[in-house]
Amino acid sequence: MGGKSKFELKTPKGTKDWDGKDMVIRDKIFSTITQVFKRHGGVTIDTPVFELRDILAGKYGEDSKLIYDLADQGGEICSLRYDLTVPFARFLAMNKDITNIKRYHIAKVYRRDQPAMTKGRMREFYQCDFDIAGVYDAMLPDAEVLRIVCEVFEGLGWNGSYTIKLNHRKILDGIFQVCGVPEDKIRTISSAVDKLDKLPWTDVRKEMTEEKGLDGEVADHIGEWVIHKGKHDLLDKIRNDPKLSANASIQAGVSDLALLFEYLESFGVLDRVSFDLGLARGLDYYTGLIYEVVTEGSAPESTPGAVAAAAPPPKKRGKGGDDDDRSNDPTVGVGSVAAGGRYDNLVGMFSGKTQIPCVGISFGVDRIFSITKARMAADKSATQVRNNEVDVYVMAFGGKGFVNERMAVCARLWEGGIKAEFMYKVKPKVPQQFKAAENNGVPFAIFLGDDEVAQGNVKIKEMGLRDGHPEKEGILVSLDNMVAELKLRLERKRTLEDIAQQAEGLKVVDGIKSADTAASIAPAVTDAAVANPETTQ
Amino acid sequence: MGGKSKFELKTPKGTKDWDGKDMVIRDKIFSTITQVFKRHGGVTIDTPVFELRDILAGKYGEDSKLIYDLADQGGEICSLRYDLTVPFARFLAMNKDITNIKRYHIAKVYRRDQPAMTKGRMREFYQCDFDIAGVYDAMLPDAEVLRIVCEVFEGLGWNGSYTIKLNHRKILDGIFQVCGVPEDKIRTISSAVDKLDKLPWTDVRKEMTEEKGLDGEVADHIGEWVIHKGKHDLLDKIRNDPKLSANASIQAGVSDLALLFEYLESFGVLDRVSFDLGLARGLDYYTGLIYEVVTEGSAPESTPGAVAAAAPPPKKRGKGGDDDDRSNDPTVGVGSVAAGGRYDNLVGMFSGKTQIPCVGISFGVDRIFSITKARMAADKSATQVRNNEVDVYVMAFGGKGFVNERMAVCARLWEGGIKAEFMYKVKPKVPQQFKAAENNGVPFAIFLGDDEVAQGNVKIKEMGLRDGHPEKEGILVSLDNMVAELKLRLERKRTLEDIAQQAEGLKVVDGIKSADTAASIAPAVTDAAVANPETTQ
Repeated sequence: MGGKSKFELKTPKGTKDWDGKDMVIRDKIFSTITQVFKRHGGVTIDTPVFELRDILAGKYGEDSKLIYDLADQGGEICSLRYDLTVPFARFLAMNKDITNIKRYHIAKVYRRDQPAMTKGRMREFYQCDFDIAGVYDAMLPDAEVLRIVCEVFEGLGWNGSYTIKLNHRKILDGIFQVCGVPEDKIRTISSAVDKLDKLPWTDVRKEMTEEKGLDGEVADHIGEWVIHKGKHDLLDKIRNDPKLSANASIQAGVSDLALLFEYLESFGVLDRVSFDLGLARGLDYYTGLIYEVVTEGSAPESTPGAVAAAAPPPKKRGKGGDDDDRSNDPTVGVGSVAAGGRYDNLVGMFSGKTQIPCVGISFGVDRIFSITKARMAADKSATQVRNNEVDVYVMAFGGKGFVNERMAVCARLWEGGIKAEFMYKVKPKVPQQFKAAENNGVPFAIFLGDDEVAQGNVKIKEMGLRDGHPEKEGILVSLDNMVAELKLRLERKRTLEDIAQQAEGLKVVDGIKSADTAASIAPAVTDAAVANPETTQ
Repeated sequence: MGGKSKFELKTPKGTKDWDGKDMVIRDKIFSTITQVFKRHGGVTIDTPVFELRDILAGKYGEDSKLIYDLADQGGEICSLRYDLTVPFARFLAMNKDITNIKRYHIAKVYRRDQPAMTKGRMREFYQCDFDIAGVYDAMLPDAEVLRIVCEVFEGLGWNGSYTIKLNHRKILDGIFQVCGVPEDKIRTISSAVDKLDKLPWTDVRKEMTEEKGLDGEVADHIGEWVIHKGKHDLLDKIRNDPKLSANASIQAGVSDLALLFEYLESFGVLDRVSFDLGLARGLDYYTGLIYEVVTEGSAPESTPGAVAAAAPPPKKRGKGGDDDDRSNDPTVGVGSVAAGGRYDNLVGMFSGKTQIPCVGISFGVDRIFSITKARMAADKSATQVRNNEVDVYVMAFGGKGFVNERMAVCARLWEGGIKAEFMYKVKPKVPQQFKAAENNGVPFAIFLGDDEVAQGNVKIKEMGLRDGHPEKEGILVSLDNMVAELKLRLERKRTLEDIAQQAEGLKVVDGIKSADTAASIAPAVTDAAVANPETTQ
């Protein structure tokens, strides 16, 4: 950065600007996620970026030190929000008339953490949250949240290459009780267990015994259980253990999970989940089901069998038969791309008496973005990402420039809902105009030359047509027919692109929507209809 | 707020939560504005909510005291952004490879101002900015920005009930020079003139002479000019004044405006602007054209002739003929709903040498929201705003509840891209399910009773059909045909609603888009196609 500027020209540490194709991809991720949220009846709310500091206090345990404070400039003491969950609970506590809601919120949160840009850990980052609040029959909203998780990742084109790891706080806490963990150590031991996805058991055991003072024998008991993964088989294993099955907390958790599996089966997503006793989740406020979503997408390339991770082959049932050696687990070491759980007591921390049970999920957009972008780069057949969405570039031919005529043509196009640009030059050169259109991948051009202007016509030309195509040289249409003719061609082009993508079995980022569009437009748009422009309209 | 809570349950001063119908309306405003921005080739960028404090320093004059600072918790000193323009200039200065861009940015900004909630003045509020950066032929981007302003307000259904007041800094500064304002007083005298929309001339004159020490005779000279409004007539008036027309700065400004009027004519929006010598704009960084958009929408109801303000009847030309008495001007006292101008030197304040000329507009969403909401409330024929967008509510009939069957039906609907909900009860009562659907204005229901479940069917029922309608009692379809049949009915319903709205000559908030949708769907969806469900598909 040169010149006489005395500024340090940068964004603050741990923050960045988003622009260009990255911004386009991130917007598509947001719109895919929003579409899913709306499909499930979600409504959105917007809360301030800062809250009174007291609202955030005591919610995040030792991570509270990561909260950004506003300077005291007189008046209230405020802090930037750390997540979207606590503001949501505050909102529910304030609005007593809202006893149930499916709310989504896509917004930035702030953490004064040590940034690790390459791993997607920033100080300012987006979260996409969906939460269901209200008193309902057991596990029904929980099951829908997990169904939403699947629709989001399918919508993003991940084609099943993800696993929802889930556990139940009541089962986990019950195991700790049965193994002999003192009541006041349960949360801290739970935090140690939560590190099992990053550390081997021996390290976790060491933390339990040496750092947290747990009896070695108790730790070993825990170690026998938290390595287990499965589904119904693991439920049976717990049920068949006399000590565990006698614990009331475990009984409640097992009953919840049995019901959940039934509902997930009805929703067609049971094969996406893995009941994992090693999942603990850090936050204190969870009270029931907890889950996080992992993918092999960010695993080291050397990991063998990564792709198969999402749909593990059936294993023989029986004692130990559903267990993996964690060191061979391709999802070990991979951060989660979404996480959440049930928190039935958080609203009550604000409202005093009114308790509203909640269950929710938070998608980590930055990590999803990195993985999506890498996949798009690897997929050569995927549609090229354009910087903008312009449909047509309006060009002048010949020396006159026709600036007013180009503007009038643009005005007509905009009125017709068509995205159009022209060059901000009174007398632009033809090659410059072509270059501008091609640089943005604009699919159509409109030409204005002496003859066209004299006769009230324009020429519509599709860019990049093969030699021999009947419209290779463009077609002449009257100004009055221009919008209709162009719309027809734009729709045809989109339909053909959609069909081509479907034929290749590809999912675009915006998968579900594109399919719908193609289906609804296809019958109306045919080559025949376009062949004779004069008959259309 | 009761209970044992020790929290003050509120959002910080000058901030608020958005939810319910307000959120839906605001989202529609955002999507209308975004649509227009994209139609003009706009691309969006996202900058951090806080910037290094040095970046913001020295950009906002005496309003700098309103900037929110972050607490010093070690590391960099940061402040919340005050607007989106300075971060945009910082972004351009940092990214030397970007020499031109049409960027839009919709985001929150922060000002520690005295909040006036009822007037829509908040400490946290949204701005929607569109800016064109780059070296181009004169007034071409400027004209397109004004065209964008018109498309936004037409898109919002304001039907011409707004005026773009514009002026040119070079003309205004030239007038000050000619009238004898000392060079070092020009900006402060300009600020005084800017208050003419809120104060009568006598008060503004007082500020100039008593507070700012301007010679009374000089003030009176200024007063003779800044009351003038018009278009070509006012340009002629300036040209015909020997002193003004001899001033180089004024010559440059007049030449710009003459060209602008020509271009606005080509864009079909010349009738929307009013050249107003009393418009000054507060910010220091403007260098050329300046404008703000006013509407009678927020004017006191007693103001006579408010609606006619946007399209003033032609007045007789000649000296003074185009002038209004400002006290009769219905836009006096009405805050602006959008404002902007040309700022050619701001990027250079960061980059030192690289200068990128810019012109842009900022829409004040909170005020636009208040006006739009008031208009929607007044317009009884407008479509009812729904809290969510659910298409169909899946209900159980009879005592069995069919919870798994309802879930499986929902899964099919979601896969088909249909927005569906069901009640989170294992055995819900029929009236409760109807109430839930009706409360949200859900247009369709799917019934599952003993017979339907036994035969693999469902019943589709459109809510609120008149007696005698062939589908009043619902139609029976197989599970496999359910999605297709429902889609057909959803499209038909939307088309009929669109046609009804168009027939009434109403503009919906999302005007342009709806019209397009109706036009493209209408030919494909007819009552005939729906009459015999078995033949469709």
